[in-house]
Amino acid sequence: MPPPERPAPRVTVLAGGFGAARLLGGLVRVCEPRAVTAVVNCGDDFVLHGLYISPDLDTITYCLAGRLNAETGWGLKDDSWRALEMLQHLGGQSWFGLGDGDLGTHLYRTQRLSEGAPLSVVTAELASRWGVEVRLLPVTDDRLRTRLVIDDGDRSGTEIGFQEYFVRLHHAVAVRSVRFAGATGARPAPGVLDAIADAAALIIAPSNPIVSIGPVLALEQVRRAVAQRRAATVAISPIVAGAALRGPAGRLMSELGHESSVVGVARLYAPLAGTLVIDEADASLAPAVESEGMRCIVAPSIMHTPADAAALAHTALSAVDRPAVPSR
Amino acid sequence: MPPPERPAPRVTVLAGGFGAARLLGGLVRVCEPRAVTAVVNCGDDFVLHGLYISPDLDTITYCLAGRLNAETGWGLKDDSWRALEMLQHLGGQSWFGLGDGDLGTHLYRTQRLSEGAPLSVVTAELASRWGVEVRLLPVTDDRLRTRLVIDDGDRSGTEIGFQEYFVRLHHAVAVRSVRFAGATGARPAPGVLDAIADAAALIIAPSNPIVSIGPVLALEQVRRAVAQRRAATVAISPIVAGAALRGPAGRLMSELGHESSVVGVARLYAPLAGTLVIDEADASLAPAVESEGMRCIVAPSIMHTPADAAALAHTALSAVDRPAVPSR
Repeated sequence: MPPPERPAPRVTVLAGGFGAARLLGGLVRVCEPRAVTAVVNCGDDFVLHGLYISPDLDTITYCLAGRLNAETGWGLKDDSWRALEMLQHLGGQSWFGLGDGDLGTHLYRTQRLSEGAPLSVVTAELASRWGVEVRLLPVTDDRLRTRLVIDDGDRSGTEIGFQEYFVRLHHAVAVRSVRFAGATGARPAPGVLDAIADAAALIIAPSNPIVSIGPVLALEQVRRAVAQRRAATVAISPIVAGAALRGPAGRLMSELGHESSVVGVARLYAPLAGTLVIDEADASLAPAVESEGMRCIVAPSIMHTPADAAALAHTALSAVDRPAVPSR
Repeated sequence: MPPPERPAPRVTVLAGGFGAARLLGGLVRVCEPRAVTAVVNCGDDFVLHGLYISPDLDTITYCLAGRLNAETGWGLKDDSWRALEMLQHLGGQSWFGLGDGDLGTHLYRTQRLSEGAPLSVVTAELASRWGVEVRLLPVTDDRLRTRLVIDDGDRSGTEIGFQEYFVRLHHAVAVRSVRFAGATGARPAPGVLDAIADAAALIIAPSNPIVSIGPVLALEQVRRAVAQRRAATVAISPIVAGAALRGPAGRLMSELGHESSVVGVARLYAPLAGTLVIDEADASLAPAVESEGMRCIVAPSIMHTPADAAALAHTALSAVDRPAVPSR
């Protein structure tokens, strides 16, 4: 009789959208996909035209299914736009891109939620239909909403939802403050706390620290659980050479009083992660990162290709001191 | 100075879906479209995948816009099906046909309703975008739902919604009873009672008397208003040679204890309409119709072409004794 197979060490990723999706695409090349859990931001979720839309969960699901439109970073590749064109013809709100195939996902999710299924269950159903083996968990099944107070002429002081900021206003307005409505009462979705506690390695994906990882950590229980695993936690900086590769992370950090640099990232993550991976472009800042109390690893962190993503995932995993399953 | 133009006599049609849509398409060829009002069944309306769907309003709007898929009698012609195919791929409910372009309509309506716009306002917006000049009014802005108790093996005695009966079960099960949930408290939409009171001619379209015209007349105020205009009201029988041309009208009438014939139709409509138009195929039943207390007009009533529909509309209008605006 052969000896029982040793279970693959578990890896859990705190995830936003596109950057996390790319990293996960690399991670499944260097470890067993079924041993990977992604705890995904759902503060971006919103209801539009009656449909419940989960942008980050969709981006990750489509990416791992090999169906993501990689040019835009959202939606299905080779999708068509007839419904949106009709909505435009009718004078409806058409600022949020809804491809025809992508709509099928939103219709499915909305119907299942209306039947009483929790978001985590619906997410698992969708992942399963796409053959995605990574376990995808929304951080919560409860309502969690990222809200931003903007500084924009007549609308200054107005609080808006994340998608309105990010998509409708192209994140081109100043932000005064960010809050995560519902975070206080929201319970982590089933499996989230265990996935953090049981992981051999915990990775904070190179997602926006404020509005992608922020909502995940806004759940006090999640934040505490991550802090308890600090030694096994590796964050990857989404800031390279002082700016985000994509999206408003750099600008948001500055506007909210953080330094838009790997040092600013280190200050945000130092209580939670023992290690920060920064890009070679920022090598000179490694001592400053270390002086924030984090181990600093300098490595290529721009994921041009899946092979780049796999190498970055490997770097992050190698950074964890003891990749064995913890004693808990 | 030329004399002021005499306003076109107003015509109001109590309408279901496809049969009414065809008739309205004919009516606008024989009278001024802006003088025509359709009071439309919304007992078929339902929410699926989070979207508020108004099948009869859509069928009429698309038909008058020249965009109806005339083969199916619902949806847009030349539509695509990517969202529905995705929904099937995901294992979702895909029994209700939702074309990609058609989805744009449902998205628009659902968003506007969620913003607090009444159904009648949204209906007018949609009609306006399509250039439809006929005034389309849902019979009510309140919730009205056609519910059927079916007789079907294990499910006998179960009450289901209209679309589940009509589309999902292909109206192939026996029906024990029909009710119109919400009819007691529902108020006629703004304009409905005036459109009935002020019309020079009132036409009951050749729609299903039980489940298409039934919900419209289930509002007591509407039924009373129509009864008061009995002399100006002409019904067109949807039953020809003992059966409906389309759909379950004949079967439903029999199952609910009515005669599936023009005489059965006459018994239902005699308190409301002074005249019944029946097809030439039923000419021999004209005396029986008249013995129910209605004037009977025998004319070709099958609308193969828009010209047929126009001729039928002309027949109905000619039947009204006094097409002048009433004294009210």
